[in-house]
Amino acid sequence: MASIKPSVPKGTRDFSPTEMVKRNYIFDTIKSVFRKYGYQQIETPTMENLSTLTGKYGDEGDKLIFKVLNSGDYLAKVSPEKMADKNSNLLTSEISEKALRYDLTVPFARYVVQHQNEITFPFKRFQVQPVWRADRPQRGRYREFYQCDADVVGSASLLNEAEFILIYDEALGKLGLKDFSIKINNRKILSGIAQIIDKADNIIDLTVAIDKLDKIGLDGVTKELLERGFTAEDIEKIKPVILLQGTNTQKLQSLREALAGSEIGLKGCDEIEEVFGYIKNCPLQTATLELDITLARGLNYYTGAIFEVKSNEAVMGSIGGGGRYDDLTGMFGLSGLTGVGISFGADRIYDVLEDLKLFPPATTQSTQVLICNFDKEGETYGLPLLQQLRRQNINTELYPAGAKIKKQLDYANNKNIPYTVVIGSDEMQSGLLTFKNMLTGVQEKLTVTEIVGYFTN
Amino acid sequence: MASIKPSVPKGTRDFSPTEMVKRNYIFDTIKSVFRKYGYQQIETPTMENLSTLTGKYGDEGDKLIFKVLNSGDYLAKVSPEKMADKNSNLLTSEISEKALRYDLTVPFARYVVQHQNEITFPFKRFQVQPVWRADRPQRGRYREFYQCDADVVGSASLLNEAEFILIYDEALGKLGLKDFSIKINNRKILSGIAQIIDKADNIIDLTVAIDKLDKIGLDGVTKELLERGFTAEDIEKIKPVILLQGTNTQKLQSLREALAGSEIGLKGCDEIEEVFGYIKNCPLQTATLELDITLARGLNYYTGAIFEVKSNEAVMGSIGGGGRYDDLTGMFGLSGLTGVGISFGADRIYDVLEDLKLFPPATTQSTQVLICNFDKEGETYGLPLLQQLRRQNINTELYPAGAKIKKQLDYANNKNIPYTVVIGSDEMQSGLLTFKNMLTGVQEKLTVTEIVGYFTN
Repeated sequence: MASIKPSVPKGTRDFSPTEMVKRNYIFDTIKSVFRKYGYQQIETPTMENLSTLTGKYGDEGDKLIFKVLNSGDYLAKVSPEKMADKNSNLLTSEISEKALRYDLTVPFARYVVQHQNEITFPFKRFQVQPVWRADRPQRGRYREFYQCDADVVGSASLLNEAEFILIYDEALGKLGLKDFSIKINNRKILSGIAQIIDKADNIIDLTVAIDKLDKIGLDGVTKELLERGFTAEDIEKIKPVILLQGTNTQKLQSLREALAGSEIGLKGCDEIEEVFGYIKNCPLQTATLELDITLARGLNYYTGAIFEVKSNEAVMGSIGGGGRYDDLTGMFGLSGLTGVGISFGADRIYDVLEDLKLFPPATTQSTQVLICNFDKEGETYGLPLLQQLRRQNINTELYPAGAKIKKQLDYANNKNIPYTVVIGSDEMQSGLLTFKNMLTGVQEKLTVTEIVGYFTN
Repeated sequence: MASIKPSVPKGTRDFSPTEMVKRNYIFDTIKSVFRKYGYQQIETPTMENLSTLTGKYGDEGDKLIFKVLNSGDYLAKVSPEKMADKNSNLLTSEISEKALRYDLTVPFARYVVQHQNEITFPFKRFQVQPVWRADRPQRGRYREFYQCDADVVGSASLLNEAEFILIYDEALGKLGLKDFSIKINNRKILSGIAQIIDKADNIIDLTVAIDKLDKIGLDGVTKELLERGFTAEDIEKIKPVILLQGTNTQKLQSLREALAGSEIGLKGCDEIEEVFGYIKNCPLQTATLELDITLARGLNYYTGAIFEVKSNEAVMGSIGGGGRYDDLTGMFGLSGLTGVGISFGADRIYDVLEDLKLFPPATTQSTQVLICNFDKEGETYGLPLLQQLRRQNINTELYPAGAKIKKQLDYANNKNIPYTVVIGSDEMQSGLLTFKNMLTGVQEKLTVTEIVGYFTN
């Protein structure tokens, strides 16, 4: 065993101290904004009953769920015939009744139904926990990763949609992003577009094609739509939609004209307009809010607003998204509960902050002062200083006696400790300790009181 | 499906918003103290390679490890003979190569060996993550629970032991405990006791019997020791140890006399004395430090100090423990690295704080103000106040228009929101909003500026 180099399973990661400080910075910032907006944290178990998860993510999703083997003699009750079959799919339900959560949404729905009598609605909850997917690992895609979700259920008010836009604006602004777009669409607008050409079943084909306008131009989009079975007449009708331009107000105006014949389409326009109305009263600090009718993520479950957030400073996919769904808890027998939610893509935000060098250089999470010494006597001399600094809530370490001073300073450098105090025999005699700023290299002789004062005054 | 009441797997729990606030309070307090002492956070994956975990916890432990089924057609390569065997133990290694972590210690050892070239030693790390054990669930014992560990590897200095005592003192004191004992023992003292009667293999029998002194008296302990195969002569020799009394200094003195013939026993006394010396220079604020030679937890891997923490205010098992081990990473091929670590029992600490009513009544994690309104006009009127309060970092919510005022105030009460603002037509006309302290019931009429000032001045 000793000769095998230890490793972690494919697609999973260790987080080192440096990474943890940065990840905590992101999560703490987002959580503080969630709390400011009245969202409350919950946590659900890592393992859910397999029956809670299966059938919620489509056939492809179900395959990606990590199943947990039953404990004990899990084969005891399996029939010899089933064993002889060697059919993995059929055996799974006999030897596994639990699985790792695949996302935070289904466990949240299960939570709401299970605890419905304790919950005060509207229920605004956030949840930051890892999820697991047996996906093929690749750059930026992991088998274990954190999701960072906020949802409100039991309120149809579009104030919630507006607040999520404000949450994105505030949280990402706090993280230092200077230029990012919050794109908004509404499923009812997409339904309206499909309705005016009587092609309700082809919404996805339609949006996929329109989405390429920037890259392939109107001719390209027209060609693609024809290939996907739309008629020239269809395309003529929806041309104003494809060529939608201008400000959000102008776009809405054009949309209203194009969708004049579709009740649901106009309802979608009304909803978007109401959300814009809220934001007019609560102007965004950093983000650009943009109506984007090509936005079609989660089309099979979103029923109202659809959100997506993109950085305009870094080349990166969406760093957030969400939308409104009308029947989240129906899958567990509680119907009629509308909800809307958003998610932050923590791993991508991490990469963006790294690319743009936006992580703060020093954090209160790290050690501020290392007290170095030459021997046991110096170590003892350092104890009161250690105590005093810690009592002032300064993260401080005393290097255990017996190491060379170079090793101690290397330790400070490797841990990015900004200040060191060196206690040698001269220092102990004079009471003036060598206090060094490790960044500037400047050092001076200070008393214990002066050093403590340096950090507290 | 709709008719099945949703539930979580046996032995696992959902954490509601109220519980999360309390749990975060405990974890945040402990983490802040770990950081103050220079410990750095790491996280390791939920799943480890099965080979990393098996063989580390004994046969009984191995059975409690949750194994994860391989993805895809996991039976494809299993021979028909093996299938016909129906032997669960033998099949597991063929269909499962990953498992859920059973504790934080083995993953930490794996981490240290895997990342040894990036780590600056002494490496002081803490880790707060859930672990999973297929134990029989019972009151207070769960299949998923958080561990909260700090360890330092690569330093033999007893300063580390002393610092862990200070960490316990500070963290539990900060959490509001007024009376708790940090018990310390040393494996070398136990070895010494066994050595002077030439019964090295019977240390556990010895300590189990001595531990009962309080309950069954000297006669009872003598009887039990005889039953466990010790001679009358043995008992005579170790009587001073059994009857150890007085202050820590007096106990140490008696021990030194009893262990005069055992080099390792005296070494244990020296180590304890050195730790006490550090604590003399850094006096404890709240805890009582107590030499307790009956302390024998983790006897099979601890090689030096052994710690255990108990509340004297609440009836509860140990709320913390730890010790020094000399070869943690040897299991992964890196030998000679000494370490010492401690753990906080978060679930038990939670119960103690609940019993003693020590959780702070209000926390900054909750909503401070709910703005209520009678209609859309009131909602719109409330938006600037909402914005201004949030800009001052006051957690604030605006209830979406359309609900009865009673429902809104119930919402505030259920979420323990301490202040409400009511905006009706009178209020909008006069500009004086109804501001109510929900705890005292006192209400007054204030302008928006006065309300913001109330929270910021």
